[in-house]
Amino acid sequence: MTQEDLRIFKKEHRKIASLESLMSLVETDLVQVNALILERLQSSVELIPKIAGYLIKSGGKRLRPVLTLASAQLFNYQEKKAIALAACVEFIHTATLLHDDVVDDSILRRGHASANQIWGNQASVLVGDFLFSRSFELMVEQESLAALKVLSKASSTISQGEVLQLLHINDLEMTVEKYLEIVHAKTATLFEAATRIGPIIAQKSSEDEKKLAEFGHNLGMAFQLVDDVLDYMADETLLGKAIGDDFREGKITLPVIYGYQMSDQAEKRFWHKTMVNLEQDEKDFNQAITLLKKYQAFENTLSLAEQYIQKAKQTLVTFPVSPIREALLETCTFVMSRHS
Amino acid sequence: MTQEDLRIFKKEHRKIASLESLMSLVETDLVQVNALILERLQSSVELIPKIAGYLIKSGGKRLRPVLTLASAQLFNYQEKKAIALAACVEFIHTATLLHDDVVDDSILRRGHASANQIWGNQASVLVGDFLFSRSFELMVEQESLAALKVLSKASSTISQGEVLQLLHINDLEMTVEKYLEIVHAKTATLFEAATRIGPIIAQKSSEDEKKLAEFGHNLGMAFQLVDDVLDYMADETLLGKAIGDDFREGKITLPVIYGYQMSDQAEKRFWHKTMVNLEQDEKDFNQAITLLKKYQAFENTLSLAEQYIQKAKQTLVTFPVSPIREALLETCTFVMSRHS
Repeated sequence: MTQEDLRIFKKEHRKIASLESLMSLVETDLVQVNALILERLQSSVELIPKIAGYLIKSGGKRLRPVLTLASAQLFNYQEKKAIALAACVEFIHTATLLHDDVVDDSILRRGHASANQIWGNQASVLVGDFLFSRSFELMVEQESLAALKVLSKASSTISQGEVLQLLHINDLEMTVEKYLEIVHAKTATLFEAATRIGPIIAQKSSEDEKKLAEFGHNLGMAFQLVDDVLDYMADETLLGKAIGDDFREGKITLPVIYGYQMSDQAEKRFWHKTMVNLEQDEKDFNQAITLLKKYQAFENTLSLAEQYIQKAKQTLVTFPVSPIREALLETCTFVMSRHS
Repeated sequence: MTQEDLRIFKKEHRKIASLESLMSLVETDLVQVNALILERLQSSVELIPKIAGYLIKSGGKRLRPVLTLASAQLFNYQEKKAIALAACVEFIHTATLLHDDVVDDSILRRGHASANQIWGNQASVLVGDFLFSRSFELMVEQESLAALKVLSKASSTISQGEVLQLLHINDLEMTVEKYLEIVHAKTATLFEAATRIGPIIAQKSSEDEKKLAEFGHNLGMAFQLVDDVLDYMADETLLGKAIGDDFREGKITLPVIYGYQMSDQAEKRFWHKTMVNLEQDEKDFNQAITLLKKYQAFENTLSLAEQYIQKAKQTLVTFPVSPIREALLETCTFVMSRHS
């Protein structure tokens, strides 16, 4: 795929795909999820809803809880458990973000100062712990042992993925396989758990549960890989994170792994200097982009993301046609085209 | 109680009380708890069992899981759930210690370098998250919704207590009531959950559950208050933490609250200088001890601890005489006399 192909591909996608259909189908439920989240953020310790609410209200798309609501709707499940478990998914996600920002020493999150910048690392660690615990409290109230199994296992996989990522933070020699293992654990696992909840609470067959898990996994993998590319090209105001964060922090992502593998000796020295030793001057980020383009690292990353998206779509089309199925298919296309 | 009374009181207690009876009664089960803990620490990410195991193997008394085993034994419960839930309690405790040490920037834990000193704050945060999640995974496998409710609520209370403590870290004006609320949340809650598990899994009456919760709560309150005193007097090799940690970190505990309330203006300035501004020279710790002794702050703290212990004992003696009941009564006495 050439740069020009890529531009056209993205433009086409953007025209045809948005999250609007999905959002409008789950809108009523999502209002209840948001209300429940705010209710369960409360604590006699006022700083807790302040910090947790700051992040939760700061304008994420709520993609993960929306996927839980959609997966329930796909099986015509209409009871309250979907609302509560969607809120649990968002709590786990938010707790992870709080701890991520401490671990990465991040400055921005969704275009605003990160919580650790405002209230310090200590409060971010503890409020993250509160959100984890609160999520489990709310989960237990739903009395679905199957949902509890999926979400507790997801949490433990996520934390293992986070440690694995920390261990490889400056590792230019990381294999594609190892990197995909990290993406699976730290991102795709929660997507997978989110979509699996639908068939679980609707008491559908293990076959349906397996299909929805596959759908979520593949969507999550694609989501992260597109994110990796966006970190090198997105408009900061759109993505809500500083472009070049991964580069600045020396966080090795798939475009860099691809680019590094193809590099000659001089180029390898550039990557070592900038991403391992973190010796960066202001021209280096553009130089990194130039090198990644030279070796089609973005195209190859997006091409792999597209493969995951195709798998996600293939799983979905085995279900009967319905508005929610079509909206989920469009969500797949949207993930590929989020921003140019 | 004078200093001399206190010395005699402690000497007497030490003669008559140890954890030996309790430990020998739960010994077989505890071996299985330890094996299960080591098994469930495993992860394909090798750093995780390394860090978690470092702390878990570093010689804590396992008091909390032992209390779970004892509370099960008090009701003649002999199945495997007690082992698994005791391991869960220890996982929650260890996760809390890892995050505590990050928040306090601690250097020592149980007489060894703390995990954050060796592997950094980032790894400690993430491995703590892993232990929390792993605890919930293991809990869910036991399929006891009642135990899940108690332990998930305990986790959320603990994290709220930790945030409350952080907010009051240099607050000399903190009331005794507020301080006891913190101790309840961050320490007594896990003792309470640990002892409540016995009657829950043995499917005893809510009356029994309430009694065991009261017992655990009161024992936990006393445990923390004695700890507060020991931080000013314990032999470092015995307690496994640096004497004077609380003072050095400006962590306000009950002896200081009592002492500060009685202080004259010059003494109040001393406390502000040392614990709020953290301007300390080498003589200040001894000066703090002198002031606390002057106003009987240690005796008053221990006297309050003794009241909690009496309540704990009163609850226990409503159960029929048995070796485990006697061992738990002795544990109460032991908590008061741990070290001089």
